[in-house]
Amino acid sequence: MFNITKIENGLENVQGFFCGATNVGMRTNPANSGVSDIDGDVAFIRSEIPCDIASVFTSNTFQAAPIKHFKKYPKDFQTDFVLINAKNANAMTGEKGIEDIESIMSTLAKTQNVLNPVMSSTGVIGYCLPIDKITSAFETLDFNAKNSHHAARAIMTTDSFKKELAYKVELDNGEHFNIAAICKGAGMINPAMATMLCFVITDADIPKSDMDEILSIATEGSFNRISVDGDTSTNDTVMLLANKTSGNYHKQAFQEALNKIMFELAMLILKDGEGANKLVAFEVTGAKSEEEAKKASMALSNSLLVKTALFGEDPNWGRIASTIGASGIACDDETLTIHYDDLLIYSSAFRELDTIRETKAYAIMKQESFKVTCDIGLGDASYTSYGCDLSYEYVKINAEYRT
Amino acid sequence: MFNITKIENGLENVQGFFCGATNVGMRTNPANSGVSDIDGDVAFIRSEIPCDIASVFTSNTFQAAPIKHFKKYPKDFQTDFVLINAKNANAMTGEKGIEDIESIMSTLAKTQNVLNPVMSSTGVIGYCLPIDKITSAFETLDFNAKNSHHAARAIMTTDSFKKELAYKVELDNGEHFNIAAICKGAGMINPAMATMLCFVITDADIPKSDMDEILSIATEGSFNRISVDGDTSTNDTVMLLANKTSGNYHKQAFQEALNKIMFELAMLILKDGEGANKLVAFEVTGAKSEEEAKKASMALSNSLLVKTALFGEDPNWGRIASTIGASGIACDDETLTIHYDDLLIYSSAFRELDTIRETKAYAIMKQESFKVTCDIGLGDASYTSYGCDLSYEYVKINAEYRT
Repeated sequence: MFNITKIENGLENVQGFFCGATNVGMRTNPANSGVSDIDGDVAFIRSEIPCDIASVFTSNTFQAAPIKHFKKYPKDFQTDFVLINAKNANAMTGEKGIEDIESIMSTLAKTQNVLNPVMSSTGVIGYCLPIDKITSAFETLDFNAKNSHHAARAIMTTDSFKKELAYKVELDNGEHFNIAAICKGAGMINPAMATMLCFVITDADIPKSDMDEILSIATEGSFNRISVDGDTSTNDTVMLLANKTSGNYHKQAFQEALNKIMFELAMLILKDGEGANKLVAFEVTGAKSEEEAKKASMALSNSLLVKTALFGEDPNWGRIASTIGASGIACDDETLTIHYDDLLIYSSAFRELDTIRETKAYAIMKQESFKVTCDIGLGDASYTSYGCDLSYEYVKINAEYRT
Repeated sequence: MFNITKIENGLENVQGFFCGATNVGMRTNPANSGVSDIDGDVAFIRSEIPCDIASVFTSNTFQAAPIKHFKKYPKDFQTDFVLINAKNANAMTGEKGIEDIESIMSTLAKTQNVLNPVMSSTGVIGYCLPIDKITSAFETLDFNAKNSHHAARAIMTTDSFKKELAYKVELDNGEHFNIAAICKGAGMINPAMATMLCFVITDADIPKSDMDEILSIATEGSFNRISVDGDTSTNDTVMLLANKTSGNYHKQAFQEALNKIMFELAMLILKDGEGANKLVAFEVTGAKSEEEAKKASMALSNSLLVKTALFGEDPNWGRIASTIGASGIACDDETLTIHYDDLLIYSSAFRELDTIRETKAYAIMKQESFKVTCDIGLGDASYTSYGCDLSYEYVKINAEYRT
């Protein structure tokens, strides 16, 4: 019915879009950032023709200025320009933060014919944007560039590698459309989608009326299921921009392609979790409701004791069980079973680990990626979330981040 | 009206009680535990005459066997014997776990005339108790000892120092009663009172009908306000045993003395938080309800990003603000103010830190203990919780705990 294929590189695969980045000097000490792949601090995505837009923002009450600025536009507005900066979150900056964005956008309008430009920021909270540095860059920035790598690198903060992906969707009738995205995020990642920015663009002829629903489903299946440390930022943003230029669309195909691209990006964020070495899926099955399954699954991916046990490669199922019990869901140690990959590591018939099972469990935990399945044994509902370990590096990165 | 004075040592201050400990060989590798103050693995508290008892247990659904065993007694039962072991939580051990306790108690009854003995355990989840090791110790254990130090040391796990306290309460009429306690806990400490055990004994003539209410108030003001890592164990226990032998009682005096002893023990646990170096009070004021103040305050003491910023001594108030915003309570960046001790570090009139304030903030954060006050500015409710920093040591201890 349709065929979804990964293609090389990122945003340049989608017709009608331009993208690039520059360095305006906001990274005062890039050598100290611990990141080698960073290149620039201000990026843009521009479309030749105005795009419909769908978005998901942080649930943090203190939304950053760019989000407040975005929400000032009428519902269902179109845009053709997204400006993104790193190093400064423009959060907790009050009215001044919004005025600064308006000022930057008005300077931009003088050189570029932009419609309803939007902005997105990531970085430290509580400082105003260096407006002059940013606007002076417009004079030399090539707004006709198609440099997705550059844009993906410029938006990084504690990321250790850039994140970009593109898919081609071929339909039965021989026609096709493309979807591509860049994304940043490594720390503060949390159920409610913490400091991560994700910009998805497409030339699919998707009706505006489908966009919110499809983006919401893809977000629930991806960024809302990962957790690095349970915190939620002021700036989290996912945007989907559609310029419709391919003239082609298929709802199910688009949903599947968007799910795929956003799930893969979420896994890249986890893999890049600050100081993280392991990616673990926490599948909870047999719960009384999906809400309960989710509660237990997210508790597991957020638990410090589980995370440090993962880092220590210690098959300590007691911490898994204790975390489920502490999550407050209905559960019973007589019906509970715990598997690491295919290895049954706890059941009521079988409580103490023998040497053979323990040896197998150690081997499983040494892998870069594995699955913990907890069957509650009381119902039919299930949920899977994804977590990573907590290492010395996490503490180091976050103790030193601002300084 | 009454006078509450700290007295030296611990449980031996309360007449009619005996206590002590022995080493039955459950700490296979004490040299690896990183703890120098440990001495024994099984402790007891015995009363000459049966005691009324009040208790608070973990909210974890998977309650350990000793808690299930306790709850089999009729409500309002009396006891004269508490046996406590470290290294093995006797949790997730099913019916066998409870039968093991009954077997130990029946052996004990053969040598000692015990009434409704209770047990309490802490350690690794999922292993059955070494019954023979424990019961063989009864032959040599001196049940008439008054060795509080020894008992306090034997119940330690990742604790780096023993915790015992005693208070004398003098009444107007010249009479007095005493309260004393031993306590263990360092990791997994959480709002819902994680792996900590606390045994309070008193000779006050407290009526059984006052005991639950008074213990519940003291717990809410102490152990329920501290957090090391947001996890909740299967074994948390607070017990209050009253043998009434002093013949003296004053409700308000008793409440104040119990509040004091339990609050101080809670602060000792925090100070001994695994790898923790700093003790920080998170006071939230001006919230719309106490529930909201508590939600924000506990979010602060649980946040990994706040904890790592404390460890890094980085006056990054953005993480404080972001955590409040993420907690879901009603708040507004125009009305919010943040103080570190007496230093105003954020208000809407005043967003970026000048060098003078930043220097002062660094000095405050270098202290072993300080207060962060967040005034929400929307109401009259307040709540204070207590947290600690997250250091490399925490990760190390918890990655290596079981092995």
